[in-house]
Amino acid sequence: MDQLLPSGLRAAGLSAGIKKRSAPDLALLTADEPVPAAAVFTRSLLLGAHVPVCRAKLERTGGRVRAVLVNAGNANCSTGAAGREDNERVAAALAGRLGCSADEVLFLSTGVIGARLPMDKVLAGLEPLVEAARPEGLADFSRAIMTTDTRPKVECALEGGATLVGAAKGSGMIHPDMATMLGFLATDGDLGPEPAALLRRVVDRSFHRTTVDGDTSPNDTVLLLGTGRSGVAVDEAALTGVAQRLARAIAADGEGATRLVTVRVAGAPDEAAATQVGRTIATSPLVKTAIAGRDPNWGRVVAAAARAGVPFDPEAATLDVGPARVYTRGVPHPEAEEAAWKHLAEQAEVELCLDLGAGAAEAAVWTCDLTSEYVRINAEYRT
Amino acid sequence: MDQLLPSGLRAAGLSAGIKKRSAPDLALLTADEPVPAAAVFTRSLLLGAHVPVCRAKLERTGGRVRAVLVNAGNANCSTGAAGREDNERVAAALAGRLGCSADEVLFLSTGVIGARLPMDKVLAGLEPLVEAARPEGLADFSRAIMTTDTRPKVECALEGGATLVGAAKGSGMIHPDMATMLGFLATDGDLGPEPAALLRRVVDRSFHRTTVDGDTSPNDTVLLLGTGRSGVAVDEAALTGVAQRLARAIAADGEGATRLVTVRVAGAPDEAAATQVGRTIATSPLVKTAIAGRDPNWGRVVAAAARAGVPFDPEAATLDVGPARVYTRGVPHPEAEEAAWKHLAEQAEVELCLDLGAGAAEAAVWTCDLTSEYVRINAEYRT
Repeated sequence: MDQLLPSGLRAAGLSAGIKKRSAPDLALLTADEPVPAAAVFTRSLLLGAHVPVCRAKLERTGGRVRAVLVNAGNANCSTGAAGREDNERVAAALAGRLGCSADEVLFLSTGVIGARLPMDKVLAGLEPLVEAARPEGLADFSRAIMTTDTRPKVECALEGGATLVGAAKGSGMIHPDMATMLGFLATDGDLGPEPAALLRRVVDRSFHRTTVDGDTSPNDTVLLLGTGRSGVAVDEAALTGVAQRLARAIAADGEGATRLVTVRVAGAPDEAAATQVGRTIATSPLVKTAIAGRDPNWGRVVAAAARAGVPFDPEAATLDVGPARVYTRGVPHPEAEEAAWKHLAEQAEVELCLDLGAGAAEAAVWTCDLTSEYVRINAEYRT
Repeated sequence: MDQLLPSGLRAAGLSAGIKKRSAPDLALLTADEPVPAAAVFTRSLLLGAHVPVCRAKLERTGGRVRAVLVNAGNANCSTGAAGREDNERVAAALAGRLGCSADEVLFLSTGVIGARLPMDKVLAGLEPLVEAARPEGLADFSRAIMTTDTRPKVECALEGGATLVGAAKGSGMIHPDMATMLGFLATDGDLGPEPAALLRRVVDRSFHRTTVDGDTSPNDTVLLLGTGRSGVAVDEAALTGVAQRLARAIAADGEGATRLVTVRVAGAPDEAAATQVGRTIATSPLVKTAIAGRDPNWGRVVAAAARAGVPFDPEAATLDVGPARVYTRGVPHPEAEEAAWKHLAEQAEVELCLDLGAGAAEAAVWTCDLTSEYVRINAEYRT
């Protein structure tokens, strides 16, 4: 399906020879004129070159973007001041070609860290990329930002007269020395007076709730553009929905994953507490290996929750694995384990629902199972 | 080697039939009379029955213990009030046999959670266990507390006229629905006026610095007994050394592990910060799979440190893998990677040393590599 971008936006992707094997690795998203934009960057202290450069540009423009360029295969991270200069130089070249200010061009990188960008290849790719940009280009864009992803990730929604699209790659946690998760959200809706606050709320309920192994990356970035051409305000719930579907897709495509796992935590004192417990369960190697073994292991789930730092009484908690209640108020139900096993064995998307019995708030977090294939991929990645 | 216990202590271990396969599973450590003792328990909210019971006993006695009984194979966890009563009943029976107060007998459990103790078997084992207790019994004791450990863990030291011994099993983190890490330290030295504070300091620098996968358990307990018979004060540094060697032994015996990894963090603003960075590196699946692949992957180590919550500048940091400096002040050294690879490939005990360049404090944390065998063990454990 060739997804049409919201009005006023065009995209493209092509192979510029940055990756070792021939594959699309340079992507472009352009707006017909500078549009309101916001970004959320990694909280890591180790930063890819694009993070400080793009953050400064957004500050200087007050959040306006004309074009977003992305390369995959090289993260331009741990490359020092030279790497930041490389980033600026590429963006300036593209700005010259588009006839806009260099501050209105953001250039993001993802891939292996510790190596300088192949500047000739990146610069040579700009012209054909601009030529190729078109309203149907999101699929090409989404393929050209992939690194070890096994499939591109695109989502869309129509809500209240505005179009929303999103594309993402990788996962903030799963990838080795890849610097890793990139998310793009674009709409012809109006972003309102505070796009940054809007995006922060959306990300807190989507990308920040996806985890594969707890390892965050130096290049993680989520970017939101809004052309405003639809004449209506963007619908926050719909935007959150698109972002959540992308976040789920990232977990489902986790390295070596065979199951997408939704960890739903209910009965929490507040949403932050529910999220914290959910993240602790979702990053537990013991829980994730149990899912790989199709084992409805209530003990590992409750034990992970019990060390999350959120006060609750395990003897008031209840756990469902899919349709099967395996643990109620401190008591396991061995007779329910067959139905739980069946859920884990037969469904590609499985659900753990833990009710803490400590309040009325809830939250969902997404993860995947931990398989031997994950270890193989990450033990053999560079060798 | 039959390790002699400090004067005034005796130990034994035997098979009481608690484990499915016939293996030692009931262990005893007795003092000739009640002696000063201290304990550190898990911080999990999910607690094995012995945790609240033993904590209350130590409060009532002001920290005096006559006997420590341990069973392996069943954690007596998620067994509710009945499980706590089982614990009290066994301890009372042993106290009756020894002629002491039930509060002076601590009964610890480790093993599978969610099942009641086989009370007949445990009670029937008490008499032969008391009969078997002897000064040379530590080896038997250490074997009878094992669950999925591949080898017993015993350490000793002689320092300033006092004897120190220690035994431990499992790991606070590695084991599945086992409830897991138990550590025992005993000496004929005097514990001084504040045994609990002494033990807390020792544990913070030893067992709390060992991690296999970040999963803590509901039964984790470290116990310290001091008979005082040597007439000298126990040497804290020597006690810490014994505890550290046990902590290292636990990491080295991590499930599926092929490498013991010492993560040394130097140049930190303070010791707590160094420990926090060390723990984050030591629990990173990406770092641990890299070690499994013998990959001196500086990027994963620095990226893990950069998300630990401790402020430092990655461009001021330096990383050594064994004898090889692979990263200096933001710049990787590809030419050093062969020597680093050789270190990882040829040594069973490997070392990562990260200097943050942000202070003068340091700390070491112990972990192991993450292999496909870990996943296999934990995915197949209950099925």
